[in-house]
Order: sequence, then structure tokens, then C-alpha cells
Amino acid sequence: MNSFGRVLRISIYGESHGLGVGIILDGVPQGIQLDIEDFKEDISRRKPGKLGTTKRIEEDIPEFLSGIYHGFTTGAPINIFFKNKNNDSKVYTDFKNHPRPGHADFTSTFKYERYNDIRGSGHFSGRMTLGLVAGGVVAKKITNFLLKKISDNSLEDIEYKTEIIKIGKLVYSNNSLEIDKEIKRVQSLGDSLGGVIQCEIFNVPIGLGEPFFDSVESLISHGIFSIPGVKGIEFGSGFLGCENLGSEFNDCFINREGRTLTNNNGGINGGISNGNKIIFSVAIKPTSSIFKNQETYNFKSGKIETLKIQGRHDVAFVLRVPIVIEAMTALVLTDLLMKIVK
Amino acid sequence: MNSFGRVLRISIYGESHGLGVGIILDGVPQGIQLDIEDFKEDISRRKPGKLGTTKRIEEDIPEFLSGIYHGFTTGAPINIFFKNKNNDSKVYTDFKNHPRPGHADFTSTFKYERYNDIRGSGHFSGRMTLGLVAGGVVAKKITNFLLKKISDNSLEDIEYKTEIIKIGKLVYSNNSLEIDKEIKRVQSLGDSLGGVIQCEIFNVPIGLGEPFFDSVESLISHGIFSIPGVKGIEFGSGFLGCENLGSEFNDCFINREGRTLTNNNGGINGGISNGNKIIFSVAIKPTSSIFKNQETYNFKSGKIETLKIQGRHDVAFVLRVPIVIEAMTALVLTDLLMKIVK
Amino acid sequence: MNSFGRVLRISIYGESHGLGVGIILDGVPQGIQLDIEDFKEDISRRKPGKLGTTKRIEEDIPEFLSGIYHGFTTGAPINIFFKNKNNDSKVYTDFKNHPRPGHADFTSTFKYERYNDIRGSGHFSGRMTLGLVAGGVVAKKITNFLLKKISDNSLEDIEYKTEIIKIGKLVYSNNSLEIDKEIKRVQSLGDSLGGVIQCEIFNVPIGLGEPFFDSVESLISHGIFSIPGVKGIEFGSGFLGCENLGSEFNDCFINREGRTLTNNNGGINGGISNGNKIIFSVAIKPTSSIFKNQETYNFKSGKIETLKIQGRHDVAFVLRVPIVIEAMTALVLTDLLMKIVK
Amino acid sequence: MNSFGRVLRISIYGESHGLGVGIILDGVPQGIQLDIEDFKEDISRRKPGKLGTTKRIEEDIPEFLSGIYHGFTTGAPINIFFKNKNNDSKVYTDFKNHPRPGHADFTSTFKYERYNDIRGSGHFSGRMTLGLVAGGVVAKKITNFLLKKISDNSLEDIEYKTEIIKIGKLVYSNNSLEIDKEIKRVQSLGDSLGGVIQCEIFNVPIGLGEPFFDSVESLISHGIFSIPGVKGIEFGSGFLGCENLGSEFNDCFINREGRTLTNNNGGINGGISNGNKIIFSVAIKPTSSIFKNQETYNFKSGKIETLKIQGRHDVAFVLRVPIVIEAMTALVLTDLLMKIVK
Repeated sequence: MNSFGRVLRISIYGESHGLGVGIILDGVPQGIQLDIEDFKEDISRRKPGKLGTTKRIEEDIPEFLSGIYHGFTTGAPINIFFKNKNNDSKVYTDFKNHPRPGHADFTSTFKYERYNDIRGSGHFSGRMTLGLVAGGVVAKKITNFLLKKISDNSLEDIEYKTEIIKIGKLVYSNNSLEIDKEIKRVQSLGDSLGGVIQCEIFNVPIGLGEPFFDSVESLISHGIFSIPGVKGIEFGSGFLGCENLGSEFNDCFINREGRTLTNNNGGINGGISNGNKIIFSVAIKPTSSIFKNQETYNFKSGKIETLKIQGRHDVAFVLRVPIVIEAMTALVLTDLLMKIVK
Repeated sequence: MNSFGRVLRISIYGESHGLGVGIILDGVPQGIQLDIEDFKEDISRRKPGKLGTTKRIEEDIPEFLSGIYHGFTTGAPINIFFKNKNNDSKVYTDFKNHPRPGHADFTSTFKYERYNDIRGSGHFSGRMTLGLVAGGVVAKKITNFLLKKISDNSLEDIEYKTEIIKIGKLVYSNNSLEIDKEIKRVQSLGDSLGGVIQCEIFNVPIGLGEPFFDSVESLISHGIFSIPGVKGIEFGSGFLGCENLGSEFNDCFINREGRTLTNNNGGINGGISNGNKIIFSVAIKPTSSIFKNQETYNFKSGKIETLKIQGRHDVAFVLRVPIVIEAMTALVLTDLLMKIVK
Repeated sequence: MNSFGRVLRISIYGESHGLGVGIILDGVPQGIQLDIEDFKEDISRRKPGKLGTTKRIEEDIPEFLSGIYHGFTTGAPINIFFKNKNNDSKVYTDFKNHPRPGHADFTSTFKYERYNDIRGSGHFSGRMTLGLVAGGVVAKKITNFLLKKISDNSLEDIEYKTEIIKIGKLVYSNNSLEIDKEIKRVQSLGDSLGGVIQCEIFNVPIGLGEPFFDSVESLISHGIFSIPGVKGIEFGSGFLGCENLGSEFNDCFINREGRTLTNNNGGINGGISNGNKIIFSVAIKPTSSIFKNQETYNFKSGKIETLKIQGRHDVAFVLRVPIVIEAMTALVLTDLLMKIVK
Repeated sequence: MNSFGRVLRISIYGESHGLGVGIILDGVPQGIQLDIEDFKEDISRRKPGKLGTTKRIEEDIPEFLSGIYHGFTTGAPINIFFKNKNNDSKVYTDFKNHPRPGHADFTSTFKYERYNDIRGSGHFSGRMTLGLVAGGVVAKKITNFLLKKISDNSLEDIEYKTEIIKIGKLVYSNNSLEIDKEIKRVQSLGDSLGGVIQCEIFNVPIGLGEPFFDSVESLISHGIFSIPGVKGIEFGSGFLGCENLGSEFNDCFINREGRTLTNNNGGINGGISNGNKIIFSVAIKPTSSIFKNQETYNFKSGKIETLKIQGRHDVAFVLRVPIVIEAMTALVLTDLLMKIVK
């Protein structure tokens, strides 16, 4: 199942070292202006090139295979394709027999009976998230298009702020120099780092989501855990907040817009957005591909053997994930918005 | 959307103070023995009666409206209904105007234009989870029925261990006396407590789940966040684990069954179960209904006013949630199992 | 899969000789007045009692298990249940071994490994359509509720006219006396009759449906073929119309409302309603349960043997199906309408 | 909604005069050999070139954008793309204002607020069915792959026979010379013809499909009416058969394989395949694009005006549709088979 969403329905396809990767968006309203320029900013946020990220740099220019006409969406499915260019598959040879710890080599080889394309992790690659980022761009445009249509400017655009709040054990905001040092140190060890990303969404209309299976938390978490490497999510004040008493945790209302004094619930009550900022944090594991030797079972030899991974890898792929989280969230919230606005 | 699942499809319905609550399971294989006795244990785990739980005690005897014949499932939809008996709606009068903090009163009244049934939180009530628990009973039976069918006893039954690991700030295992004291203390304050629940699933076959939108984490988290009061979830070593280096976090394989030395990934790689124990933790917020006065906006008077909640409430509803988490997880894993086993 | 619909989602459950049958409607907008009286007319159109129909007469009073509060829909799932009362299962004994021709005895016993409830055809019974009729009542109310909301009276209510146009070989309109005679004659032979039903829908807004899989024809036919006994459907001028030349078949537009001179396409172009009357016809097979002896294979004895069916059956169940067709169509069109109107 | 299917899920995309058209198949089992050669025969059956078909001839060579590795399916989504090459859009200018009768110009322009790509009918074009034909090729391979896996050769391959049985008013089998003459005659008039296609499927296993919404008839008809130009479908002896008495219509069983003496039900009882040949017929309307003048409303001028269509069109596109019907049916039956076989 590579599809997600009810009204705005996305499907992703592709492989890391195949022809390319892409996304189809079905259900996009007609009349939204869309060109390649719109994608540049978000795609560049996902690109490597900074300290701690891989040297495989792709151009990542979106190609519209369908659904755009004269620069506007037509209402037909939009297929956005990204060709792979800078892939080097030579170094991925024996991972079916000697699977990399933390990766999907073992499970995908078992499940797909060794027919899986393991080059660059194939369909399991983080490169698949490029399609999600492109989808997020379209989602954001849809949201603002719909809000404009209904609001007579009474509603503001939904805005996203997504940033890393922790790398390894270091809190980001007040440690950026230390963090650079830590990344270099870990890189020199041939090791890797994880982190935590926080996503805040402003100006969310009241009423998105439903009780139970279409709760805002259910759908966001469903989407977020689809992103490779995510190990946890918490809304509002999260795990720590749940240590408090009810009288401390409850968010009392303070005005007729439904603003609350605190926001421990993260902008959601009973699965439905309450108009306050939606806020959640996501735990991202350290990059599984490390250059350090690992002692792990070789299924061909039947022995635990040293595995030495080569190639180009992010020291901390968490650095590239904020825009992916943001895009996935935009896809979910836009889908929910489209249920109540036409 | 009150439905969930692909092959095993559930739909829940009902209200806390209406005629009753229930669940329909569609896609249940024929030939599974099922009677009222099967439900007793799990339903009693959800029942109040213990320290820290409400005094509203319902009999909660399941009534099979369809899909069972001569004590066996027929393959047709199974509708399980629970009549409400011990409800007292008198105390729920003005919550549409003076919404309870932390509850869905504000959002549901906004979204459903005041047509929502707010008695006992209506369709948003924790009582709706009774249907989920019943569904979980059926799911567990399906799983073991299917595993028996394919395994010639080579596969063991899937087993669940779900328990509270934290109440408020207290770790459960080594503090049960303190916890009783704390519950009594908080109860005497008219306040409430949250906590953390841990779920472990043993003997999960390798190969459940898929990359991206049907990852085990995506589907479990989707289900778990459908349960009222959940604010966070983390798999394996979770948020804390992500502070480690990759060389510490990676789970090296140690034998041909795919067992790993550590289990920081919580039994899942690339969204697919790897045969190790699945483990995750869930943050549950403190009960929103507290007897303590709360200063919160009254939408009728247009002023912040004191709200005094009456009635019968759990001091720490987290105490009743472990079986709900377990049931929801069983529903998800059974659905995934049914995709690969017929 | 006993569910259908995207925005307005229905699920049916129950058995002919079990506790009862019913339907859940999920996605019904809040604020629609709904009481038992609303169901009387359509349910009575499905009831037997007339010439050519069975003597099993049920009261068929809908019981609202959920989703209604103070006489209005709340937005939560509506579960409508009909208790079975007048069932007599004694005469359904050996159909698993000696399956009735034309019925689902053979296929359901094979597929469900003899766990199927075969009494009164169980879950395969025509009695299941009672839930659909109840669903149709709700659907019609939703449609007119939504049209009123958007139209400032510029749009008229959608109206349905569904009637039998053929019984056996006799055209209905100009032969009603002959038809009564024919029914009596066939009844006296212990045999049965089929027929053709025509459904016309007036005042359908332009723009319902989509190209390909959500075309109006795709969704209506999907729904209609779910009704037991349907063997064919044709839209507009249908099979006969397709014998004409394009210049005869094409429906030329004559005014700015999109009215066409002819209506060979049945009110649909490219899968989308064009504002003209939607019209289609449905072929209903003769009742499979006949009193006449039938020579058919007995899977226990391994020989072709005489089967003698007893009990109470419609001579021509087609007489009771128009309202079922109409209800199913209303469910489909309402679902499509809800996609474009909020 | 451009997606269809539950286990084998297809999504189509593209436009007639855009970059190309294509299909994604999600849920294809791993390990099926697949190369371009496999597609040749079915694609050539859809190609024009014969008497009565258009002169727009495309190469139609499938390009695998994803999901194939070393010549085998991997289990990941398969994206098959067909570039458009031989399109000439000059002649499609004013159809938004002066819509072609029988086409989707009016409805799509209304629904998509004039943002629709109308060149060659854009996303509404018959060219979209090329993706379906490619999907059908994959579906047939899946079916036989799965049957082989379970059957130890006890089950034969499913086989399809799909052919035109009527062109205009002429029955095909015994009139092929007259039909050629009729096509030429109608062509010389600048007019067009429709017809009827019959599809027979042999060796269908017992037990595909379910009662109600997943009945074989519901799903096949859903798929078939997605094909542009279909106006009717009937199973077994269809409309005419329903004129018979029950004793004539009922299909008596004659052996332990469930073979029946007659096949008026078309191989389906209670929505489930009974192991006899599935047979149905489909009415296809005459090509809407005719060269003859048509008097039809111009929405710009506000007057009924003469419309003269130019370009290249099939006289009887029904001639190209049999393989599309067959492919769509293969997709539906394979999806149903995959529900019961793993």
C-alpha cells in the first residue's frame, strides 16, 4: 500500500537507484497555479550539502507527467517524477546475505523473497521522501487556495515552522557550535547521530479531524511514521506533560476564539483541531549506515561477521528530515481541510 | 470515519448515554468458535472498580447481533452490541456553553453545530473503547486460528503483555505502594493523574507491514491515537534511544531466525516486523474531568467563569487503558497478518 | 466487504433468520431531522402483501441504535436495526448438500466451508435490502438538506421515479390486467417471474461523478448489482440505442442549462451528470425459489435428485425491488453530492 | 478518484495530448517475470489501423518507471508510462464553448471550471484505456502465477475470450462481409457506429467475490462502466433471459464440480463465482466524434449553431474496445483472487 489520504490521495513510487522516484496526487482541485519554481525552496531544504549530510547530490527537478495544463492544475491526477542521475550502485552488493543492522535489508529480503531491489535500499530508501516533499508543496498551495476561497481574508494562511530541537544529546537552539563540533567528532569516528524535530502549525482552522480513526493525531502519526527512521511522536507537552496533574494539564479556554491559556494538548481536543497552534515532536534515529565495523550475522555463511559499509551517507540524516515532516503534515491537514471545505 | 483496517475492517458506533455502544467486524474468517465467555477476561480488564477508577459500573455483556451461527463465525459481518444501563445524564447540562478543558466539548460543539450528543461525552466518550476491546478479543482469536492453520505448530501464538509503567511521575514496577498513596492523595485534591503504558508483543511473524503508509508503526500509531487521551507513542528505545550513536542504536543480527542483540528498533525494520519482540510505549494524559474548580471561558456569558464538574470519573483513567491499547494493537496486527495469510 | 461509499459510508449486517438486519451510515451531516415516520413510506413499498409476493410479513420498524439525539442527526454513525420476528427456519434444512438452483447455497457453502448460516439464505437473503431501503431514506434527506443549504431555492429537490416496466414478457404500463392474470397463472404452476425496473432521477445537479472509476454509471451499477437478483443494467437508450448511428445517438445541447434534445446518454457524459434526467433500467431474474420440482445435484448422495422447495416465497420478487433500486441510487448520488457540497 | 481495486490497486493518470498516459499497479506480488514483449499482443489488439479505426497511430511501447528489477516484479509499485508522440492538438480549439454532443466537453468544462485540458479530450480520452490494457497484462500474469503456486496443476489457467458480437444492428459472427460494407457506408456518411462486446472467462475458480458490494457483478460492472462509451452490461442470459420463468432460468447442478446444465446466471450465484464460465455482454455507443454537421448549443454565442468536428477518429471505436473490457475484467478477477490466495 503506497497510497494515503481520503480526499487528497497520494501514491508514491520509485527506487533509489532505478529510473527515478515520484508521486501522484489525485483529488487536487482545478485552477491552482503550479510551476517548477514553486518546488525549489522545499526541495532545497531536503537536499544534502551541509555539514553532516551525504555527498550524493541530485538535481531533483520535478517533471510533471500529467495533470497540469497551461500552468494550472486541471483536476486530473498530477504525476510528478524525479529522475535519478547521481546514483552509484556498485557498493550495494551483498546486503541480502549480510543485511545492514537498522536497515530494511533483512525484512525486505525475507518478505519479497529476494526479488527486492536493494540498490540504495531501493523502494525503502529515504530518497522516496522526495515525492512526499513535492506532495507537500502541492498540499500547501491547495490549503491556501481553499482558505482564500472561503474566507474573504478572515482566515490567515496556515503556516509551518519545523526545526531540529535536538541532535544526539544536544539541544539545538542554544548549542549550534557544540553541535557542529559533535557532528565532526562523530563523523571522524565513522559513526552517526539521531535527533528530535519539532513541528508547529499556525492558523489551523477549528474543526479539522474527527473522533477516533480520523483524529488529527491518528492521521498525522500515520503519515509521520511512514517516513523512514521515525521512532516516536508526541503531541503538545507529550510524555513529560503526562506526568502532571489534570489541573496543570487541562488547557483552559480564555476567549471566544477558543484560545487556551496553556497548550498541553497541542491544539487538538477529541481528535479535532481547536484553533490553537498544533505542535508535535518526532524522534529520528541515528543514520543506520555507519562506516564503523559492525559484527552481525551473515545468512549465507551462517556466522556473525564484520560488516563494513561503504558509499556516501548522511552522518545525521535527521538534518534533512524537517521538510519531510512538514510536507507529510501538510498533506494530512490539507486532506482534512478538503473534507470540510469545497 | 469510524472505520479502520483493510482486510479485517472494524466500525464503531454508539454513545456513552445513548442506547449503547458497539463494533462491527467485517472480514472475519468463517469457522472460529466464539462465545460470550471469550470476552470476559479482556472486558473485565477495562472495567472500573479498582482504586482510582469511576463508580459507573456497567455489566458490559456482549450481544451478538449478527455473524455468529451455532457458536462459530460465519464469514458475515459480526455486530457486537453493549447496552448502556448505568448512565446518569443529569449532570452534563451546560458543557456546550461552558466547555470542559481537555474534553471535546468545545471542538465537537463547534464542528457538529451543537447537534452533538454531549451526555457523557456522547460519541467522544471513553466508553466507545469497549467496542475496541471486544474487537481485540476477536482479533486475537483470528490470529491464533490463522497461525495454527499455516504453521503445523512451527509458529507459536502471538502473545501480548501490556502494563502501566508510570503513573504521574512514579515508575510503576517498583513503587506500587507509593502509587496507591499518590492516587488517594490526588483523589482527595479533586485532581487527576496520567501515565505511561508499555505494550510488548511476542512471537510476531517476520514480514508483517510494508514500507511507508502500511508500516507497522504507521498503523499501530494510527490505531493507538484513536484512543481518547493518548498524547505520545514511541517504539523500541524511543526518544531516549535516539540520543545514542548509530553504533549503539543499530540492532545487530545474531542468528538465522533474525534475532538481534539489542532491540532499539522495537522489532520493526523498514516498517516490517523482523521477528523480534515488538515493543512500544504510550503516553496517556491525566483524566480531563476533575472536581477541582477550573477557570475557563463561558461562551454564553462571554466571561471566564468557574467550572465545577460533577458526576463519577476515573482519577486516573490510564488504569483502564492497557487492555484498550492491547486490543487496538491486536486489531492492527491481525489485519496485517490477514494480508499475508489466508 | 459489506461497506460502500466514500463520504457517506454504509455498512450492512445481519441475517434473514438471525436476530435481525441493519445498516450503519457513517458520515451523515449533523442537524438533519429524522424519525421513524420518515421511513414508513419507503419501507412499505418494499413490503410484501400484494399479489405475487410472499406471506412472510415483518413489521419492519427501524430502531435507532446510535447517531440520533433529540430527533436530529449528530454527525456520529447512525445504526438502524430491524429485529426479525416472523421467521420460520424449519424448512431450510438440507440446502448445504442439495443446493437450490439460482441461490447462493452452493457458492456460500463452498466459500464459507459450511459455516454459513443458510436459514432463509442468511446473510445472502433479500431481507438484507431492508437496510439499504432505510439507508436510502436517510440519503434522500441528506440530499435535500444539502441542496437547500447551497441553493437559496435555485435548485429543486432531486426526485426519483422508479417503476416496473416489464414482468416476464409483458410490458407493464399497458398490460396491468394481463399481468395479474399472468402472475396467478405462474403461481398456480409453482413457478416464478422476473422483470425489468426503470429508474428516473430528476433535478440532478450538473457535475456529479468523475471520469473513470467514480463515473456515475460505475458507482450506480456497483450499487445496483449488489442487490440480489440483478442481472443487467443499461443507461439511457441502452443496448437498443447503441444500434443507432452516432448522428442519431448524440444528444445535442439546446440551451444554456445544458438541456439536450434527446437523452440517449441517460443524463451522463464522460461519467459526469449533465443536468438532464438520469435514467436507467435493471433486469431482475425470476425468483429462484420455486415450488415446482427441480432435478439438481445432491452433493451428499452424489446423484441428481428432485428438489422440492417449501416455505413462503415471492412469485415475482421484482415487485418489491423498485424501492431497493431507488434507495441504492439515492445512496450513490448522495455520496457523490457530498463530495462537491459541504 | 482514479484508483480502483482493494488488494491489487491501480491508479491511472495522463492526458491524450499531454506528455503521455500511464498506470501504477500497487500490490503486485514479487517474483513475476515481466518484460516489454509481454505487452505487445494486448496492446496491438487495442491499436487502430484496421478498417473503421482512426489514423492516429502511436507506438505505445511501455516504459517501466518503477517496480521491476532484473526482469522481475519486486513487490514495489509498478509505474508503466506511455509517451504521446503522434498527437495533433490544433483541431480542438473551441469545444469549451461549443461542446461536442456525446463527449465530456460540457460536463468537464463545467465541473473543472474551464481548467480541464480539452485537447483530444485530455484526461477523459479513450487513450487513457491504454493504461488499463497494460494493467490487464500484469493482472493476467499475476493470476496464472498465483494459480500455479496453489494448484499443483490441478487448476487450469484462467482464459479470456472477448469479441464483438454486434456492430450497429448487424450480428457479427455471420455477417462479417456485410459489416465491412456497413462500416464503409457509415464512414462515407461521416457518421459512426456502436456495438456489443461479449466477454467469456473460462476456468474461474469457485469462490471469487462476496455477497453485496464485492459481488463479482458489482466489481466487474464498476470497472467496465469506467471505460468511456459503455452504456450497458448484462450477465448470463441478461435482459432477455429475465423474461423466462424461474424453472427455465434456474441453473440446475449436474456434478460435484458444480457444473450447471444451463448458465443463465453467467457463472455467478449470490455474487460469488460458481466455477462455470463467467459471461457478460457490454453495449458500446457509437463514436461521439462524427464528421457530419451537428446543430448544438454554443455557450458563448448563446445560440444553437452548426458544429463541424475535424481530426482523426474511429468510425466505430467499439472495434478497439474488446481488449480494454478484457483487461478491466482481468484486473477485477485478479484482485478478487488475491483476496483468497496468497
